[in-house]
This record gives sequence, C-alpha cells and structure tokens, in this order.
Amino acid sequence: MARNGRPSYDHVPMVVIKRLPRYYRYLGELVEKKVERISSQKLARMMGISASQLRQDLNHFGEFGQQGYGYRVEDLYNEIGRIIGLEYQYNMILVGAGNLGQALANYPNFAKRGFCLKAIFDINPRLIGMKINDVEIRDIDELPDFVAKNNISIGIITVPKDAAQGVAEMLVDAGVKAIWNFAPIDIRVPDHIILENEHLADRLMVLAFRLQDKLAYEPS
Amino acid sequence: MARNGRPSYDHVPMVVIKRLPRYYRYLGELVEKKVERISSQKLARMMGISASQLRQDLNHFGEFGQQGYGYRVEDLYNEIGRIIGLEYQYNMILVGAGNLGQALANYPNFAKRGFCLKAIFDINPRLIGMKINDVEIRDIDELPDFVAKNNISIGIITVPKDAAQGVAEMLVDAGVKAIWNFAPIDIRVPDHIILENEHLADRLMVLAFRLQDKLAYEPS
Repeated sequence: MARNGRPSYDHVPMVVIKRLPRYYRYLGELVEKKVERISSQKLARMMGISASQLRQDLNHFGEFGQQGYGYRVEDLYNEIGRIIGLEYQYNMILVGAGNLGQALANYPNFAKRGFCLKAIFDINPRLIGMKINDVEIRDIDELPDFVAKNNISIGIITVPKDAAQGVAEMLVDAGVKAIWNFAPIDIRVPDHIILENEHLADRLMVLAFRLQDKLAYEPS
Repeated sequence: MARNGRPSYDHVPMVVIKRLPRYYRYLGELVEKKVERISSQKLARMMGISASQLRQDLNHFGEFGQQGYGYRVEDLYNEIGRIIGLEYQYNMILVGAGNLGQALANYPNFAKRGFCLKAIFDINPRLIGMKINDVEIRDIDELPDFVAKNNISIGIITVPKDAAQGVAEMLVDAGVKAIWNFAPIDIRVPDHIILENEHLADRLMVLAFRLQDKLAYEPS
C-alpha cells in the first residue's frame, strides 16, 4: 500500500490501463440502466471483446466476480473508478481559447468524471474576461499565480504549434503535474511531469492503414 | 501481394500499427532537416523508446537499415508512409460545424498527410453556405448525394451525443468506408465499416491514473 492507499499497479501493462476507461463507461451505462449483475461473457459481448480478455484484464487488479454469478455491476464500476483514481477531483486549466479550446471547455463528459476546468488562458485581449461554459478566459500573465492558488494539477494546451513548447514550460514552472497537449508537435517536459500528446493526425493515419488493409483483401 | 500491391500485415499487432504514425512524424522531421542516415540507437533515443523496440517494430514490416550503417532516413520515411497507406489521397467529410468541427476543419496537419476535407455538413440554416478554411458548410440533406459523387471514404462525426448514431447510419448508407467519431458515445456500425471512437474523457482518465500512481510512490 502506498501513501494514498493505492496498491501498486507497476506490473500492469499500459495497454491494459488504457482500456480501463472503456470498461468504466460500459459499466456506468449498466448502472444507469439499473442492471445489478452481469456475466463476463455478456459484458465482453457488449464491448466487442472476448470474455477471456475481459477476465485477464481485470485479473491484473484483483479478484472480481464469482464463478457462476458474474460481476456485481455497481461494485465493479466503483472499483474500476477507484483504480483509475476517480474518487479525487482534478483541477485543470486550458491554454488557448481558439475553436479547439472552446470545444474542450464545452465537452460534457469531463466535469462528470471529476475533471474540473477552473480557467482558460489566452493572449488575445479581446477574449479576456469572456466566459465559455461559465469558465473565465484570463490573461496568460495570471497563469503562474492562478495555478499556485487553485491546486491545478492538469494543464491542457490548445495553442498553435509554435507556441506549445513555451506554454508547456510555463505550465511546468507554475507547478502542474500533468499536461495534455493538443498542439501538433511532441512537446518535451521534465521526467516528473506526466504528458499525453494528442496527435489527431495520427488517428487518421491509423484509419488509412486499416482502410488499405481492408481494400487489399475484400472481394471486389 | 494483394489487389492494391500490399503485402499482408495481418500478423502485425495493432499496438505496433498505432506507433507507425509517430515513427513517420519523427522521420519526417529528420528529412526536413536533411539528415541522410541515422542509427537505430539515435532514432530510438530521440523518440524516447529503446533501440530494441524500434528494431522489433520495424522488423514486422521487412528489412530496414544495415548493420553498422543505420537507416537511410528518406527511404525509411517513404516506406513507412507506404505501409500506412499515405501514397493515396483520402477524401473526408465532417458532420457538425460546432467548435470541435471547426477546430478539426482548421487542423493544419490533415491536408499535409493527404487527408482532404471536401465538405462540412450541419442542420443549422445560419451556418449553411459559410466556409471554414475554404471548405463549404452544406445542408445535411445533401450528404448522400455528395458522398456518392465525391469519392468520400472517411466521415468525421462532431455532432452532439444524441445525434451521433443517426449520423453514423446516414454516413454508412451513403457509402463511407471509415468513421471517426468524436461524440462521447460508442456508436455501432456494420462490421465492414472501419470505426475509431475518439473518447476524449478516456484520455483524461489515463492521465488521472498516472497521476495517482505517481503520487503513491514519489517522495513527499
């Protein structure tokens, strides 16, 4: 057990971690539908995966479900939420109030999961003072002070490519612990900062690969 | 060899496929800097991965590089582009001209990779006829005809959650081959359609997990 009461998940491959949010979403839908229990077969079928993958994935985190009974939906939902870390609230700021920044500020599912956007920063004086989804746009000069005073752990970067590295350094200096970068460039941060670079064009390339692979072998 | 001259990549795990765009980006940067060759060690270090992972990944696709010489940068760049399928142009349409749709329409790296946005569709009469990044917003009623006449292979969905499944079915009926869905819901499509659901909240959950895992073990 660690300081925050967490067991160690060091042994769990990142590909498994990345599937947890999807399990969490599906279980959340079942909870909303008041389903009390579900077999691994049925849950796996709903999700389009094999029952053995589902069981293997969950086995990394402990014993869930019972032979012949299946999973208690709400328990499993809460447990996966705890494993992900959703019993905490995460305060976020966003830098760059353009279309993408505005879209993210309006995205409905962040607050629901405990990700709370506290402020948006921009350099454009015409935007400063406006609100998006009730969150104020502030002058970027206020960023260091705001991060320090509002327990901000996550910084989201939606500025143009050329400004992204500078903004990342500003966020790191201000004390954020994690950065989610949407600028189409791999930003560099010190090792102690958690970083996700969101390369949207990469997703299209994967689609292209799958299209070509499919075209190659389907009957004409 | 398949109909489009492609070898079979059936044996290549999807996690490896998903890393190809990143290799492609890094090699593209080296090409721009006129670097002619690079060792696997050096390329791996640039990318923050191990040389053995790099070699293993590339070995799935054939023999690249030579012992003691390394990789010819431009050859490897072109070869990975071909494996991904970037020698073709992909015509796309986007449905939903809100902030996220506009952000994607303005995203600089799609056209550069051969992903060409041909039209944006919306139901809002005030938007129809406007242009974003030179791409016209059209009435959604024109979608089936437009897809048929313009060889559209990819449909991007940026409508609200409740409209997403309906739009997906419309795209499938119209004849697109792949769908990239940004609505926060897992849409369902027939098996022959390639689908990527982009769940932005999932990425935040992975960040949360990594934050908790780190907080648990770092010295206070």
